[in-house]
Amino acid sequence: MDAGALEQAERLVSRAYVSQGADALARRGARTKALLSERRLPRAPWPEPALEALLHDLASMDSNNFDANCGVGEREARVASSLVRRRNLGFAHGIGRSGDVAAEQPKAAGSSLLAKLARCLAADALRVAGYKDVGDVLVLPLATGMALSQTLLALMRARGPGARRVIWPRIDQKTCVKAIAMLGLELVPVPETLVGDELRTDVEAVRAVLEDDPKGVLAVVTTASCFAPRACDSLAEVAKLCKSLDVPHIINNAYGVQAAPIAREVCSAWRKGRVDCVVSSTDKNFMVPVGGALLYAHKDAGALIEAVAKAYPGRACAAPAIDLFATLLGWGESGWRRVLDDRERIYAYARARLEEVAAALGERVLETPGNPISLAMTLDSFDGSGATALGSMLFTRLVSGTRVVDRRKTETVGGYTFECYGAHSDDYPHTYLTVAAAVGTSKEDIDLFCERLLKSAKDWRKKAGRAAARAAADAAEATASLSLD
Amino acid sequence: MDAGALEQAERLVSRAYVSQGADALARRGARTKALLSERRLPRAPWPEPALEALLHDLASMDSNNFDANCGVGEREARVASSLVRRRNLGFAHGIGRSGDVAAEQPKAAGSSLLAKLARCLAADALRVAGYKDVGDVLVLPLATGMALSQTLLALMRARGPGARRVIWPRIDQKTCVKAIAMLGLELVPVPETLVGDELRTDVEAVRAVLEDDPKGVLAVVTTASCFAPRACDSLAEVAKLCKSLDVPHIINNAYGVQAAPIAREVCSAWRKGRVDCVVSSTDKNFMVPVGGALLYAHKDAGALIEAVAKAYPGRACAAPAIDLFATLLGWGESGWRRVLDDRERIYAYARARLEEVAAALGERVLETPGNPISLAMTLDSFDGSGATALGSMLFTRLVSGTRVVDRRKTETVGGYTFECYGAHSDDYPHTYLTVAAAVGTSKEDIDLFCERLLKSAKDWRKKAGRAAARAAADAAEATASLSLD
Amino acid sequence: MDAGALEQAERLVSRAYVSQGADALARRGARTKALLSERRLPRAPWPEPALEALLHDLASMDSNNFDANCGVGEREARVASSLVRRRNLGFAHGIGRSGDVAAEQPKAAGSSLLAKLARCLAADALRVAGYKDVGDVLVLPLATGMALSQTLLALMRARGPGARRVIWPRIDQKTCVKAIAMLGLELVPVPETLVGDELRTDVEAVRAVLEDDPKGVLAVVTTASCFAPRACDSLAEVAKLCKSLDVPHIINNAYGVQAAPIAREVCSAWRKGRVDCVVSSTDKNFMVPVGGALLYAHKDAGALIEAVAKAYPGRACAAPAIDLFATLLGWGESGWRRVLDDRERIYAYARARLEEVAAALGERVLETPGNPISLAMTLDSFDGSGATALGSMLFTRLVSGTRVVDRRKTETVGGYTFECYGAHSDDYPHTYLTVAAAVGTSKEDIDLFCERLLKSAKDWRKKAGRAAARAAADAAEATASLSLD
Amino acid sequence: MDAGALEQAERLVSRAYVSQGADALARRGARTKALLSERRLPRAPWPEPALEALLHDLASMDSNNFDANCGVGEREARVASSLVRRRNLGFAHGIGRSGDVAAEQPKAAGSSLLAKLARCLAADALRVAGYKDVGDVLVLPLATGMALSQTLLALMRARGPGARRVIWPRIDQKTCVKAIAMLGLELVPVPETLVGDELRTDVEAVRAVLEDDPKGVLAVVTTASCFAPRACDSLAEVAKLCKSLDVPHIINNAYGVQAAPIAREVCSAWRKGRVDCVVSSTDKNFMVPVGGALLYAHKDAGALIEAVAKAYPGRACAAPAIDLFATLLGWGESGWRRVLDDRERIYAYARARLEEVAAALGERVLETPGNPISLAMTLDSFDGSGATALGSMLFTRLVSGTRVVDRRKTETVGGYTFECYGAHSDDYPHTYLTVAAAVGTSKEDIDLFCERLLKSAKDWRKKAGRAAARAAADAAEATASLSLD
Repeated sequence: MDAGALEQAERLVSRAYVSQGADALARRGARTKALLSERRLPRAPWPEPALEALLHDLASMDSNNFDANCGVGEREARVASSLVRRRNLGFAHGIGRSGDVAAEQPKAAGSSLLAKLARCLAADALRVAGYKDVGDVLVLPLATGMALSQTLLALMRARGPGARRVIWPRIDQKTCVKAIAMLGLELVPVPETLVGDELRTDVEAVRAVLEDDPKGVLAVVTTASCFAPRACDSLAEVAKLCKSLDVPHIINNAYGVQAAPIAREVCSAWRKGRVDCVVSSTDKNFMVPVGGALLYAHKDAGALIEAVAKAYPGRACAAPAIDLFATLLGWGESGWRRVLDDRERIYAYARARLEEVAAALGERVLETPGNPISLAMTLDSFDGSGATALGSMLFTRLVSGTRVVDRRKTETVGGYTFECYGAHSDDYPHTYLTVAAAVGTSKEDIDLFCERLLKSAKDWRKKAGRAAARAAADAAEATASLSLD
Repeated sequence: MDAGALEQAERLVSRAYVSQGADALARRGARTKALLSERRLPRAPWPEPALEALLHDLASMDSNNFDANCGVGEREARVASSLVRRRNLGFAHGIGRSGDVAAEQPKAAGSSLLAKLARCLAADALRVAGYKDVGDVLVLPLATGMALSQTLLALMRARGPGARRVIWPRIDQKTCVKAIAMLGLELVPVPETLVGDELRTDVEAVRAVLEDDPKGVLAVVTTASCFAPRACDSLAEVAKLCKSLDVPHIINNAYGVQAAPIAREVCSAWRKGRVDCVVSSTDKNFMVPVGGALLYAHKDAGALIEAVAKAYPGRACAAPAIDLFATLLGWGESGWRRVLDDRERIYAYARARLEEVAAALGERVLETPGNPISLAMTLDSFDGSGATALGSMLFTRLVSGTRVVDRRKTETVGGYTFECYGAHSDDYPHTYLTVAAAVGTSKEDIDLFCERLLKSAKDWRKKAGRAAARAAADAAEATASLSLD
Repeated sequence: MDAGALEQAERLVSRAYVSQGADALARRGARTKALLSERRLPRAPWPEPALEALLHDLASMDSNNFDANCGVGEREARVASSLVRRRNLGFAHGIGRSGDVAAEQPKAAGSSLLAKLARCLAADALRVAGYKDVGDVLVLPLATGMALSQTLLALMRARGPGARRVIWPRIDQKTCVKAIAMLGLELVPVPETLVGDELRTDVEAVRAVLEDDPKGVLAVVTTASCFAPRACDSLAEVAKLCKSLDVPHIINNAYGVQAAPIAREVCSAWRKGRVDCVVSSTDKNFMVPVGGALLYAHKDAGALIEAVAKAYPGRACAAPAIDLFATLLGWGESGWRRVLDDRERIYAYARARLEEVAAALGERVLETPGNPISLAMTLDSFDGSGATALGSMLFTRLVSGTRVVDRRKTETVGGYTFECYGAHSDDYPHTYLTVAAAVGTSKEDIDLFCERLLKSAKDWRKKAGRAAARAAADAAEATASLSLD
Repeated sequence: MDAGALEQAERLVSRAYVSQGADALARRGARTKALLSERRLPRAPWPEPALEALLHDLASMDSNNFDANCGVGEREARVASSLVRRRNLGFAHGIGRSGDVAAEQPKAAGSSLLAKLARCLAADALRVAGYKDVGDVLVLPLATGMALSQTLLALMRARGPGARRVIWPRIDQKTCVKAIAMLGLELVPVPETLVGDELRTDVEAVRAVLEDDPKGVLAVVTTASCFAPRACDSLAEVAKLCKSLDVPHIINNAYGVQAAPIAREVCSAWRKGRVDCVVSSTDKNFMVPVGGALLYAHKDAGALIEAVAKAYPGRACAAPAIDLFATLLGWGESGWRRVLDDRERIYAYARARLEEVAAALGERVLETPGNPISLAMTLDSFDGSGATALGSMLFTRLVSGTRVVDRRKTETVGGYTFECYGAHSDDYPHTYLTVAAAVGTSKEDIDLFCERLLKSAKDWRKKAGRAAARAAADAAEATASLSLD
């Protein structure tokens, strides 16, 4: 309701009352103006109605929502289903143009604004999370794996057909392998080194393989966030190597934005060495539905990201940008800081509770100081096929997300075969399960998990005991029957 | 997004594109301004996004949605459930104040504007429907029955304890009787007179009972919309009587707004005689959920309506006003005219189709030219308890809204006993069923109804035939057994 | 998705995964079954998706949502606007039938179920709030004032024209007066008596006026929840009087459900004496939008409430029942208890903070132990027209809900004139403002209020000081000019 | 509400009424079961409430919506923002697994079902549109360009580094060029041949370039839907060539699903020759927001599509599948057929109206029988820079989607330079504008376009006339001044 309308409103309802309403609308307008001029997280959360009003206004600025528009192209963003229109809040043009996924669209000023603002808010959220000197952020409507492969594709174009090897400190996560394999590149796994309980980057091994033939290397792909007992890679060390040898360096930081120690390591890496691009998932870090990734780097190192944006053929789905935008505005800086702080607390809580459970079961929590998100507890006394059975018991008891790793699995992923797949190592000395203290995990989740784990372990042991007793009885009987002979 | 925000937007997205978006927002603003200044149905329907944006803005003008508000009263319109907040679009203050259901609220400029606009749009919708010279309309959040009783209460206060009789040309509809009975008034039914197939007002009988003791009469309550074969009352004749004898006159026009002939009769009544108030349902005429009524009269005869508004103790539910407002804006004048035209066409269609069915069954459609909405078809050949059984068959076959009237029922309503309840008359000469051609009824509804009626009638006759055959067989057997004796 | 569908689903997606999904659907089904069989608040809150699914299912059971339905009545609950349909969740038939607002509707099994369940949940919520032995609760789609007038109307029918006086311990709240005045009854205010700072029921005065002519009294209307410094009426004492003299007794408990001391007083009243009906607002107690009221009484005293239900002419708006139902399910028993506990805490907090502010301003908080919701702080040093000016300053600073009472106002309400209107007394010895600690009030609200009050008071004094200085200067100048003469 | 709940319901509301509601729920259940067992478009549209209920049930089957779930993984699909949760209908797990974008997810049975059903419905929609013998359809959450590049990547893996050339009958649409360029492949444009007004595939030129070195060719990429005056490529001819030379063949059918003649050509191609994959946009053909593509082929030629699915690294956004699913169910087969029929009619209408306009302007509509969607009208009399100016006038008059092609533009796309970019040919003999008759285009759109085009052309000519007059005057003056010298 603009000034003209408000003036009319005063003829229907007392000026004093309308005036208070007008002030409220003006405060909302000021909020929007501040967002557009400052382009960063608002200090405080935006209330949902304000957020809805802004999304409404933005959608109104797209031509598919113009009353007076007459569209005679092959794509006018008409939406047939009213349910679909509503759930997309009226946005239908997607993001990007044929030329560039970060480009604005003539037919969709609102979508274009939203996409730009989502990038600005994402950059600010990274800054708040500790990513000092981060440059422009690309919000790709692709999950982490596809986003990684886009960065590698851009490097392939830049470095030509001679550079086909990807140096990769081993991380047993399929998506990463497939992102490389899908491009027909040669994956060169570098085994991790075991330090105490923890698997760490073997920097010397990386150096060796790099120095062997730097020009044949397309990139080093390190991993920042991963399952314990693997630690965050030694990003700064690798970055320095890459810088000195002029080799590109991509960091797979799928869900590490939420953990300050990883931010520090990433920043150290791009300050001291070479980092061409960091890739992070939007859903794993910002609690939005699956489908988006952030690509970012130090503000002086944006070339690869720009190349990725400019090579994108055609438009893309706007959903990840919309969801991220709405979530970040709904949090504001204070909300996002609270999410980060809560997670840190839940990590400490999860560790403490898990130690209690481990003690009760005669197991222990592995020492993995280099992993600020994931925890691992040994299951050595459940060995044999037992650990896997325990895992199944947890699944049927509605525990999701825990991983039982029993060291015996060999698996082929994207054409590459790995021993002890899942353990990040051919010979990790324990069977274990993992637990993540990720954004949004609650105290209740941890408590419930500990309760169900204890219960399942007891049930397993009872059953195992019965099986052992039965085996002993069978043996005794066998012996007896033998003696009868 | 106001001018300041748009200026900032141009730094993010090309001016030319933002400018088209800004034009779209400006067109939306102009639309709102026009609504507030003209206060009538817009010519064309408002698109849903524009409607949602306006409702959003209005809700933002209520104090419960102010970010900066600090509420320390006993009612601050806080809404606990987010589902409830959403479905009420943020409106929570209701309408009216302790003093007056039509009064504005200091805490809720938006709700107050909406309530006023709903009244203006309702008045315009009545004008479009033929209610020439209609005055201010009260949108009461009460359905027809309660709304009627509010008008009678206001008359009771005005005329004092001596006037307790309500003269009432009989209409067999419970709500109307109960609206009178709940006030402890004396209901004086005046039998209808049969003219051809149709039941019409016996104006001379009304005159007789009125002239007997005009001062003892609180009001005459006539009925405009009703089930065939009863016709719309002779409103103008009764209005003239009321004027000459200085007796108040209330017209129960529950669902007659949709039919132009009734509008003509009502207008003739308030031009030639006395009409203190007309009461119409919002749901039956405007296809909104149950819960509201319109109170209206000639623009020079608004005293009773004002008295009703001013006597209302406390606030009231805003839902009926919101629903009516959204529906009327969503239609615009053109949409509302189309609804009215479609209904007229469906009446003719229903009549034609029903005549075919009647012919096929050896029955006929009753001649009821005085009822432009409801039709009745004889069921004389289904007599006995048969017609009721046919009605049940239709109910189980998902036909709703048809009424089978079989003339034999005596019923007591609100303390009053009626012979042949349902037939509006002690001795109507036919058994029949009724069908309404109401707003929103589709060709498909009528076709489906005719199909199911024919099928049910055939099934009924087959069954009746078998029963008759069985009865004959039983009789034959009985005779046989007798003869055997 | 029923068993047949799930079986098919297992051909598309692995049985183990579908099976977990099926379990989730089954848990949801069990929840619904428990609700329908236990008919009380669930222990824990229902998650919003479960709530939406149930509302969806209920709406699907109404004939207007049947795909196969063919409606040929004058009201088939068709909804023209999709926005209106959505916001009403598909419910359109309202509640009640011509005969009875509590009756079920043949065309709307879902709406009927919802209405019944809303009544059951409301009764349970009252029990949880301390209303021991409460009987069936009527959820009226009328706010408190109209609900009160409905109970009085029912008494009028029962007691006949001889009983026209309503005995009413004075409470300066317009709605209550108008609810009585609209029925043309005679209001007999009984002045409160001042005990310390508090205004309490003058039971002896009530007795005197009652004993004078008990048969001429329609009812005593007492008030349980009110603005300080008035206390909750001596309900038990009055109830005993009513019982001994055979006079009906209605308790206006608009927003007292939220305060345990009032529950105790009401229960004591209906245990020891006569209480025909208690009326409470749904919005003021349960944080839903304005529009509904609860009518309730001891389980052995439900006659009046039944009479109110059975006299209701026609259907009514379903919105208040839907909102209450959704809110109570969304809270569950635990949530509702938390709301009650939080409110109790906020009352203590508000009192403590207000005492600080009062001390800072040289005022004091009035001692009103008989009012567990509202607090009053003197404004004696702001006397003159000052207190009202202070009130305006608070309004423009977005403080809503506080009331400044300055003792000088005479006002006529519903035809009755009151001295010192607002103060509940002709001669209360202080000017004061009130603050309510109502459900939903937050610590932030109280803090913000105290801050704005202090700031406003300082501004007021600065201004008053300037005005006084100017007056002194003017006086000095006048004297000077005089002496010059 | 399951059987147990309904039984309880009958204790609250009459069995007969509950029973009708139960029947309605059962019909809804049957509809779902039929969908899951038949896996094709329902004959009739699903009403929106039924669709919402199914989506609700599916979401309830995902673990993130289990009440009892305890998630301790790094991604549990928690959604922080309630607005985001609502707009995603509770779906948050995306689609696919690390291994395969078409794989089911253990944590998300509902999402997995939805994704499978979306594929089934898409396949059926293609069959209805004329794609006889179509096999499994992959619904990729990537728009056309990225989807094309995924198919080429899969071919690169299959054919090895020796096959790097992409044979490509020229089509001036950037996305297609960039989809090839981003992979570092060599684009080999084959000029179209002019037949009458129409640009058609030069099959002999394609043969020549293919036969030259078939093994060096990665694929032929033909185009089915395009701007007039280019025609749909000679798909069957090219397919036969590809088959005989054992070269892969990809068809870019971005928006051709909507046109039956293209379906016939595609089917002829995969029957007579080789077609490895057809790629179509979901938004351009099915009126959903931008973001998805369909990959499909003859049912015996699914290998490439499966390779694309299996190579996809990680999960992906579910939005395109949800939107397509909801749209197709909301249409049903009958709705989809109506959309197709309407489009065919609008094409004829657009052609006729455009011919009128062309006649009025002294221009003509180009004869392009091989393009059933796009139309072109000459603008030869607006030559010079005039045609572009006319295009700008149309843009500012809110005409979107028309393209003015003026033959003089040279442009570099993805590293390749094209003469007369936009005209699909270095030397097309006309300046022209294009108009598409695409799904959803209305008669009003066409009428409005014609009106605005005529108006703009007149304004242009008036202006051009003035400019010419001024130029003549200037010349005269110049001459005059010369002679003065």
